Amino acid sequence: MIPQEIILKKRDGGSLSREELRAFMDGYLRGEVGEAQMSAFLMATYFHGMTFDETVDLTALFVDSGMRLDLSAVPGTKVDKHSTGGVGDKTTLLVAPIAAAAGVLVPMISGRGLGHTGGTLDKLECIPGFKTDLDPARFVEALHATGVAIAGQSDRLVPLDRRIYALRDVTGTVEILPFIAASIMGKKIAGGADALVLDVKTGAGAFMREEEQAKELAALLCRVGAHFGLSTSGFVTRMDEPLGRAVGTWLEVVEAVDCLRGMPSPDLMEVVEAVAGGMILKGGKSKTLAEGIAHAREVLRNGQAYETFCAFVQEQGGDLLYIEETLRYPAAKCVAEVTADEGGYVAHVDARAIGLLAQELGAGRTSLGERIDPTAGIVLLKKRGDRLEPGEPLCRLYSSRHRSLHAFRGAARRAYRIVPDRPGAVSNILWRFDENGIMRSIDQEDDVV
Amino acid sequence: MIPQEIILKKRDGGSLSREELRAFMDGYLRGEVGEAQMSAFLMATYFHGMTFDETVDLTALFVDSGMRLDLSAVPGTKVDKHSTGGVGDKTTLLVAPIAAAAGVLVPMISGRGLGHTGGTLDKLECIPGFKTDLDPARFVEALHATGVAIAGQSDRLVPLDRRIYALRDVTGTVEILPFIAASIMGKKIAGGADALVLDVKTGAGAFMREEEQAKELAALLCRVGAHFGLSTSGFVTRMDEPLGRAVGTWLEVVEAVDCLRGMPSPDLMEVVEAVAGGMILKGGKSKTLAEGIAHAREVLRNGQAYETFCAFVQEQGGDLLYIEETLRYPAAKCVAEVTADEGGYVAHVDARAIGLLAQELGAGRTSLGERIDPTAGIVLLKKRGDRLEPGEPLCRLYSSRHRSLHAFRGAARRAYRIVPDRPGAVSNILWRFDENGIMRSIDQEDDVV
Repeated sequence: MIPQEIILKKRDGGSLSREELRAFMDGYLRGEVGEAQMSAFLMATYFHGMTFDETVDLTALFVDSGMRLDLSAVPGTKVDKHSTGGVGDKTTLLVAPIAAAAGVLVPMISGRGLGHTGGTLDKLECIPGFKTDLDPARFVEALHATGVAIAGQSDRLVPLDRRIYALRDVTGTVEILPFIAASIMGKKIAGGADALVLDVKTGAGAFMREEEQAKELAALLCRVGAHFGLSTSGFVTRMDEPLGRAVGTWLEVVEAVDCLRGMPSPDLMEVVEAVAGGMILKGGKSKTLAEGIAHAREVLRNGQAYETFCAFVQEQGGDLLYIEETLRYPAAKCVAEVTADEGGYVAHVDARAIGLLAQELGAGRTSLGERIDPTAGIVLLKKRGDRLEPGEPLCRLYSSRHRSLHAFRGAARRAYRIVPDRPGAVSNILWRFDENGIMRSIDQEDDVV
Repeated sequence: MIPQEIILKKRDGGSLSREELRAFMDGYLRGEVGEAQMSAFLMATYFHGMTFDETVDLTALFVDSGMRLDLSAVPGTKVDKHSTGGVGDKTTLLVAPIAAAAGVLVPMISGRGLGHTGGTLDKLECIPGFKTDLDPARFVEALHATGVAIAGQSDRLVPLDRRIYALRDVTGTVEILPFIAASIMGKKIAGGADALVLDVKTGAGAFMREEEQAKELAALLCRVGAHFGLSTSGFVTRMDEPLGRAVGTWLEVVEAVDCLRGMPSPDLMEVVEAVAGGMILKGGKSKTLAEGIAHAREVLRNGQAYETFCAFVQEQGGDLLYIEETLRYPAAKCVAEVTADEGGYVAHVDARAIGLLAQELGAGRTSLGERIDPTAGIVLLKKRGDRLEPGEPLCRLYSSRHRSLHAFRGAARRAYRIVPDRPGAVSNILWRFDENGIMRSIDQEDDVV
């Protein structure tokens, strides 16, 4: 195999055979294909894409590059969940205990945040004592004990993805559908679950800004999942505004705990109930999505979801005192309230602007390995549709990294769009899609997820 | 400057400002922009190209990355020549002494061959004793002494091009017009000549297979040259068949010497006379192209071109005995004659196939640094339009590297297309273009080059 010839074939719009793709990727892992050659290949793939067969072959190479988790020691249907990432997206912290409380096993391999969207691992690791570096035996033990286990991706799981992701990140080649699909599905297939519920986000704060692109990705993920026997379906959800009220690591844990204790953020819970309902359905604990959603509401209402969350935190070493009394947690050294100049109604809170601002305050990282300030973030006191008097607080900024937050107020204020008339209500759930990637309006009556 | 942002801007079809391009290229030279990032940028540029302003900025960065030759110590107009490379292209060996014999100064920085086309340096270095690693002072001295100096590109001349070229070669990003332009013109501008005559080749054996692409490159090179005050014009010439009869390093020197001694290969001389005529015109030694061509023919006829060639060889350390008696040269250990199966007329000799075959015989290299077999190559006994009896020899293969050339005969035979009727004559000169890159048919009467 001559690496240039593989690059040229893709550059000139050709499709690669399984053997060509394998030779190129194996060569890369062995060091015979250089980082420069892989980068040129990635950029050529950005322009020409890949066929479905190539995408499946790529995913298989991703999976085969490392170990696979064997969860057969824990009897029952295991349902994983994946979100493509959004601002204030603490959905995992909620749907995992909800689905587990409903009797579904939830094994999750999760990632760290990079850029303006947060990572579940970073949030969980805010809880004093919480451990995410579980070896396979410990992971299975935790799953068996509480029905939920969430761990970080080990070096042995899909190492090809780790190397290529690092390269995509610095070479402007993140947005390549087949590589996104291989990256997501490779990890999920290696993770050993039986089914997967997706939350594909779209809008200004999401990775996929265009709804059509998000739908295309969702359909591709389903088809790849089906090919590998991982039943995959889910939702395309809106990510124009931050989800819920908190953006930041510890602040999001607090909001999740509040929701589990019966103080819900409505826009967040709409997504949580849908995803959890889908997980309960796929886990065989309900016959329809509506029944799954009803089940989710029930375990939220009766406290079982909160109990499961507490058991899960304790099982992975977290100190429950901080969950039971979230105010025990070290306070941010600096807090600033941002007020409205004018009265009216909130028409929009820009998710991307808020995400980037939270990152600047210390809640996110600009490079892997950077430390996060767990106290940093933003709490939105007003969201879309809320009425405002002039001078009323819009949001609160938190940071222990900065001495003064004065300089950030302007950016926070600019993230808000205020209008004189109340805007219409919108749903965060745009589409649900089945295992064939077929899109359905959320209002349609047939209960497929 | 964040390298990713520059890559993304180009990937998404944007144009880079001079400052952005400078920051990216300077970052690359300093090691802050990695090889992987440069490769992704190159591939993005393959798809989106560059504006003329970007191309000029890139060329300036190429020139500024190294030293510039100062030829002012030698009075007179200096005219350089550049061919984009072809099979059997020994034009430089001829036009340099012809133009110098006509009173034009010819300073040339030349390259080595890579792939199926040969390099002038490799041919000259076949001559025992010939030196091409001249320092600037020695280069100027040689130019002053004989009117011709040909040297290899030093590490100090356009180092940015050397690094990027090595990367383009392995990442499938050779064919990017703005980088080709910056690479060619950067070296020529740094080389210090006053004017440049181009021989842009097109056809199956050339780098630019499509005539339109060759014309586009020619026009771009002229415009870039004009921007930097290097008056550039020339010809688009056909490269479907090898040029002349010999393909190989020493074999091509022999053919050039034969031509200088009055035993011309007609198709080769058509190109040689046009290019040399153009150089004489640009060097101010004729008023029109036709007059320049007449002047070239005269110095060929009266032996002055041959004398200049001998003086040039001697000045750069070459042993004249081998030029005066080319048969003194060590013979190839293996020679094989390839005969025709059928009679008829030669309709076509595939330049690319012959070039690749000569490379296999040892006349070319597949990677920089590889040694060339100076005796290896092919002599075409029959070319387009020649009549053939069955069993008559088509060509002769030479090599000292192989023990038997039997295995190569089939490939040589397949490079020939034989037809029953004599094909029409064709001209190798397709277009000539002026300093504005305006194309003119070669038959047009206005004498612009």
